[in-house]
Amino acid sequence: MSFSVPTDRRGMVVLNKEECEQRLSSTPIGRVGVIVAGEPMMFPVLFRFVDGAIVFRTAVGEKMDAVWIAAAVTFEVDAWDAVQRVGWSVIARSRAETVHDPMETRKLEELGLEDWVPRQQPTTWVRLRPTEISGRRIPEQRE
Amino acid sequence: MSFSVPTDRRGMVVLNKEECEQRLSSTPIGRVGVIVAGEPMMFPVLFRFVDGAIVFRTAVGEKMDAVWIAAAVTFEVDAWDAVQRVGWSVIARSRAETVHDPMETRKLEELGLEDWVPRQQPTTWVRLRPTEISGRRIPEQRE
Repeated sequence: MSFSVPTDRRGMVVLNKEECEQRLSSTPIGRVGVIVAGEPMMFPVLFRFVDGAIVFRTAVGEKMDAVWIAAAVTFEVDAWDAVQRVGWSVIARSRAETVHDPMETRKLEELGLEDWVPRQQPTTWVRLRPTEISGRRIPEQRE
Repeated sequence: MSFSVPTDRRGMVVLNKEECEQRLSSTPIGRVGVIVAGEPMMFPVLFRFVDGAIVFRTAVGEKMDAVWIAAAVTFEVDAWDAVQRVGWSVIARSRAETVHDPMETRKLEELGLEDWVPRQQPTTWVRLRPTEISGRRIPEQRE
């Protein structure tokens, strides 16, 4: 198409906020990136994007090791379709907070979200309220 | 099944080295986790797992901003099948190195690997030789 699509200096198409949020809303799995003992760490979570926040459950004492709670975390979702050769990624930056309020917790439980980790241990809801969301996609051939 | 499957303290099934490498070999997209300006950063790459190393191309001066070259990086692949409710992830730890040797570069070019980012800029091959690989999968109901 001849009308312009916003691209970054690498030639990737820039997704607007709405497009980023739509992808966050329709993707089941994402990864949390944190710094643990000075090294980058990532772990996958099944999450929902609700009221502008990323929410997921995690086991207390594991991912919840206080190291990263209240610290800066990065959240990533992406997709790659090898047939269509279509790919995109969205990154959200946030601080992680735990949800303890019973009313809020009940509301989150009603989401029917599955756990990545079996519930053999106490789990806690974690919420990321992004302060920054950005996304890119691979340009289509015709763009 | 009554015979035991190795699990971690969260109840996740531990993948052995061969299972981790098999998954690295058959997954097209992974994420590199690095620390940039004191914050965790992640970006997706299309990669191959060849001769025990993770290789991918990236644009010079972007992801290649020397910040993370030679630094500790984490590489993650995962999958989630919402129908089968099967999920797994593999994490590799490494230091990142660039590949400049013409013979090696030619061999890598022959892999036919696609780029995540359009080749509008010079790109460089990056290789991660994992010093540690670990993986987990969600247990099946019967396990």
